[in-house]
Amino acid sequence: MIETDAVIIGAGPVGLFQAFQLGLQDIRCHMVDALPHVGGQCQELYADKPIYDIPAISVCTGAELVANLEKQVQAFQPTMHLGQLVTDCKLQADGRIALTTSNGTQFTSKTVFIAAGVGAFQPRPLLVEGATVLEGKCLHYGLSIEQDIAGKDILVIGHDANAISAALSLAHTKPAPHSVTLMHRRDVFDAPDALVQSMRGAVSTGQLHLLIGQLTALHIYENVLQSVTVATPQGEPLEQATHHIVALLGISPKLGPIAQWELAMQRKQLEVNTENYSTSVRGIFAVGDINTYPGKKKLIVCGFHEATLAAFGAAEIIYPDRNTPLQYTTTSTALHRLLGVSDKNKPV
Amino acid sequence: MIETDAVIIGAGPVGLFQAFQLGLQDIRCHMVDALPHVGGQCQELYADKPIYDIPAISVCTGAELVANLEKQVQAFQPTMHLGQLVTDCKLQADGRIALTTSNGTQFTSKTVFIAAGVGAFQPRPLLVEGATVLEGKCLHYGLSIEQDIAGKDILVIGHDANAISAALSLAHTKPAPHSVTLMHRRDVFDAPDALVQSMRGAVSTGQLHLLIGQLTALHIYENVLQSVTVATPQGEPLEQATHHIVALLGISPKLGPIAQWELAMQRKQLEVNTENYSTSVRGIFAVGDINTYPGKKKLIVCGFHEATLAAFGAAEIIYPDRNTPLQYTTTSTALHRLLGVSDKNKPV
Repeated sequence: MIETDAVIIGAGPVGLFQAFQLGLQDIRCHMVDALPHVGGQCQELYADKPIYDIPAISVCTGAELVANLEKQVQAFQPTMHLGQLVTDCKLQADGRIALTTSNGTQFTSKTVFIAAGVGAFQPRPLLVEGATVLEGKCLHYGLSIEQDIAGKDILVIGHDANAISAALSLAHTKPAPHSVTLMHRRDVFDAPDALVQSMRGAVSTGQLHLLIGQLTALHIYENVLQSVTVATPQGEPLEQATHHIVALLGISPKLGPIAQWELAMQRKQLEVNTENYSTSVRGIFAVGDINTYPGKKKLIVCGFHEATLAAFGAAEIIYPDRNTPLQYTTTSTALHRLLGVSDKNKPV
Repeated sequence: MIETDAVIIGAGPVGLFQAFQLGLQDIRCHMVDALPHVGGQCQELYADKPIYDIPAISVCTGAELVANLEKQVQAFQPTMHLGQLVTDCKLQADGRIALTTSNGTQFTSKTVFIAAGVGAFQPRPLLVEGATVLEGKCLHYGLSIEQDIAGKDILVIGHDANAISAALSLAHTKPAPHSVTLMHRRDVFDAPDALVQSMRGAVSTGQLHLLIGQLTALHIYENVLQSVTVATPQGEPLEQATHHIVALLGISPKLGPIAQWELAMQRKQLEVNTENYSTSVRGIFAVGDINTYPGKKKLIVCGFHEATLAAFGAAEIIYPDRNTPLQYTTTSTALHRLLGVSDKNKPV
């Protein structure tokens, strides 16, 4: 069990800046995110797309924004717990908050910052009868299959770079599977040209099969997948032997367990006061797209402000006797010490 | 008289970002600032000092921050009215706001944004009897003297780069003044080494005189300066013939006329609601260091958020029938058109 001053749920841009602002308050923190990397939505959906409204940055991509925020928070080294979901959050009798993650990590923290955006990103599920029974055995939402696939028939469903990469990598596995098929409902793929070319090449040499159609049924015998039925564009149903399905249908956000935490909510958003962006429970703050208040706009620039005031709110809980006036990073030697910069490092 | 949708008072970082956010709302604006350049406090006091807490910018100087904000707002080309103070601000019967500046510029605007920081920066006055009588004639707060100085005795008071530059430039004026003296109370100057070296050089060749002391009296005859009395560190008073004084004592902020505008205030700060940062008068918003609300921290990152929500508040007044959902600069073609960026310009 990790005892700490602060846990941030969500390592997107606002979560990262939250860690930075906590650092300026001399508060170290742990960060938890459902994705296996930092950056959240910004990294997942806008990595290579331009953002024009971050103050003093005329244009940057989502990935650049995340990289810059990571660089900025480096001085404070937040401890990362990635690829896991906070499943439980309870106020203890001593005023601290107990958190549990899907990996079994447990925290007792004086403050918690929910910076979970639109929720935890999770793989979009295959919506066909019997799918849940097969999950983790014959149905896989990750890029690879743990089980032995030698001699098996594999179906990869999807149309993005992840789906194509997974199909190619499975087709090249040794010992070889019996067949690998990439399936999408249209013959259109959303991936870099070079990757699509590789895929077409593997199809022309027969290493990979390409099937245009939609999955309509799973044929399961004793909890093991035997074959699938696919509706082709011509409308003929087609049955294909299949032992494993890799479904890479993209990711979609889920508010998840947060909705059960007995925090005041309004239409799936956490209500906060704008003085310090605390929720209805003392010690739990909500910043970024997940909160709501009069005038709320879901913009990153607003999340940065919210995280800043929330850090001041946390300092009142963690350092109740501290009574320092507002300090500026330009002039405060105390902040320079925290940031690890000395006068020697300052730009000329 | 200029009729417009928006006037921003104060062209510091928050004022500049206010203009950018108004641009995203398709609102063009005029900006007024007391200083002869944009950037406000940041440019005036921290131009070469490091700032560490602007989101996603690990470190930048005040001048760099201002330059980046100017670049970002370029697409919207706010009209600048620099070197003038807004002296009067009145709500008209038609709901618009009438503004007058110290230059006599008049505006009628649907919305006004007070982003005046700690107030208008004004030259620190020379606090010695008779100074006000001489102002603009024998006492100058700017870097140069309009009148003919050939054969005259000039005294430059100050210890920064401005004071040294003005003294050197006056000493090199042709036809030459009779004498130019740089005076400061200590033999310590706050300017780049090279500039201080130039000054010492000019002193050693006799082109410039250096006097360590403090002005204690002005000797005036028929409203014209004749000489001054200076207290030297040794305590001996010294009388020196002087026809013109250039006083470059730095600048200090003054809230100025804003205090008389009948807006609700709290300890010299304008009260705003955090929904859209409007003051007690509809159409007048206050953003940045000049406003106050529960939790307020005087940080630039907070001003950026305030300016963003204030722009939405203004859009409700200027485009009352607009009913578009929140748009993102990453995906909205309408915003791309306003920003003047096309898909071709987007980073790869």
